[in-house]
Amino acid sequence: MGLDPDPGRLPSHLTDALPLPEAVSRFCKDIVAATSDSAVAFKINFAFFEALGTHGYAAMGEVLDSIPADVLTIADAKRGDIGNSASFYARAVFDELGFDSITVSPYMGRDSVDPFLTREGTCAFVLARTSNPGSADFQQLMIQDRPLFETVAERVVAWGKESRGEAGLVVGATDAGDLESLRSILLDTPFLIPGVGAQGGSAEEVMRASGSGPVLINSSRAVIYASDGEDYAAAARESAELTRQRLGS
Amino acid sequence: MGLDPDPGRLPSHLTDALPLPEAVSRFCKDIVAATSDSAVAFKINFAFFEALGTHGYAAMGEVLDSIPADVLTIADAKRGDIGNSASFYARAVFDELGFDSITVSPYMGRDSVDPFLTREGTCAFVLARTSNPGSADFQQLMIQDRPLFETVAERVVAWGKESRGEAGLVVGATDAGDLESLRSILLDTPFLIPGVGAQGGSAEEVMRASGSGPVLINSSRAVIYASDGEDYAAAARESAELTRQRLGS
Repeated sequence: MGLDPDPGRLPSHLTDALPLPEAVSRFCKDIVAATSDSAVAFKINFAFFEALGTHGYAAMGEVLDSIPADVLTIADAKRGDIGNSASFYARAVFDELGFDSITVSPYMGRDSVDPFLTREGTCAFVLARTSNPGSADFQQLMIQDRPLFETVAERVVAWGKESRGEAGLVVGATDAGDLESLRSILLDTPFLIPGVGAQGGSAEEVMRASGSGPVLINSSRAVIYASDGEDYAAAARESAELTRQRLGS
Repeated sequence: MGLDPDPGRLPSHLTDALPLPEAVSRFCKDIVAATSDSAVAFKINFAFFEALGTHGYAAMGEVLDSIPADVLTIADAKRGDIGNSASFYARAVFDELGFDSITVSPYMGRDSVDPFLTREGTCAFVLARTSNPGSADFQQLMIQDRPLFETVAERVVAWGKESRGEAGLVVGATDAGDLESLRSILLDTPFLIPGVGAQGGSAEEVMRASGSGPVLINSSRAVIYASDGEDYAAAARESAELTRQRLGS
């Protein structure tokens, strides 16, 4: 379950009555309470909280604290910086906020990824083949007959095997062929798969293509914006439950 | 001037007397006040503020507000996400915090970069060839006889030409040859050049290699940690002034 709270799409009775950071945190907490039975994990998109200004991290902390302990938490922050800086981003997400996992950008290479792989029981999902149109610009460039994202994926997984934390990959749902080919070379790597629902990926197709390896399949907008009325939490619950059933989990 | 306030390297008389977010903000504001005559720009590294927890963004806002209006500000945040999320990161950095520019990761392609190029009078410095050891892992992979970072650089600059905001590039100081070859194909692109000083790049070499195009040459640790005593601000001022003179600016 992805929490991407766009103020422009929140129920107006909330945004009319509350300051924006409070409206966002109330909305997300209600969605969490209504859907946590149906979700394996909640993925919190940092962009929407940072856009709230200085109160953003406090609002995010409230939402995070409301997630039951047996449900995984993913900091969708796409961080990536030189080693020293990366270790402070890891401290922010794992130690200060207390997430179980984070999304990480690979462009700066190993010393930018390693600091997210140092904590036992946590996972860094590194961007490999993403679900957006721009994924074609660089990720799919061919290097010796293989797309860049395959090289990225293989190296990141190798780094993970030498680390205490676990390395996973972000692999979009929008191209089942690429998903299938990555799974065929990385049988037991955890894949975080966005792009089902609003972005156009089919749940059934994704389940087939990702084989028997571990997957977290994300749906955000299709669930959290199921209704913009006062019944938003109940509507999200219904949509989350339908998604869960469609995924056969 | 890079502001990368590592709590472990702050003067102990500050960290002993104040809660950490306040010590960090006091330290940075003193450095800003002491060095703003010598600096063209201040680059604030988000990792160190986010690691302060929920008070981090408020501390960063205080530092940012203390920077004189005629000195440029760079959000060193290395953001990069699908278009919708990227537009919220841009809102956070340009509209909520009020920075003039930001560092951006290119891995997700054009729709992840474009939202940072929509505001007149702002600049997005996109990672091309970075100064860290890991830059060899992916940035230097050869695609049809050219390293990936060259393709990234050329495409990003082309996107910038079609945008209202300006596209610049992050090009590390640690390999003058790569810097020189990028400048030879991108004569008037602004380069943000980290890696001078603590990371080993030579200021003179960098000035020669970057030719007559626009550059911002960053030094962080060598200046802000010039002293860990009560004279830290004066020592930073001296170090910043020496760096400025060495760069002949």
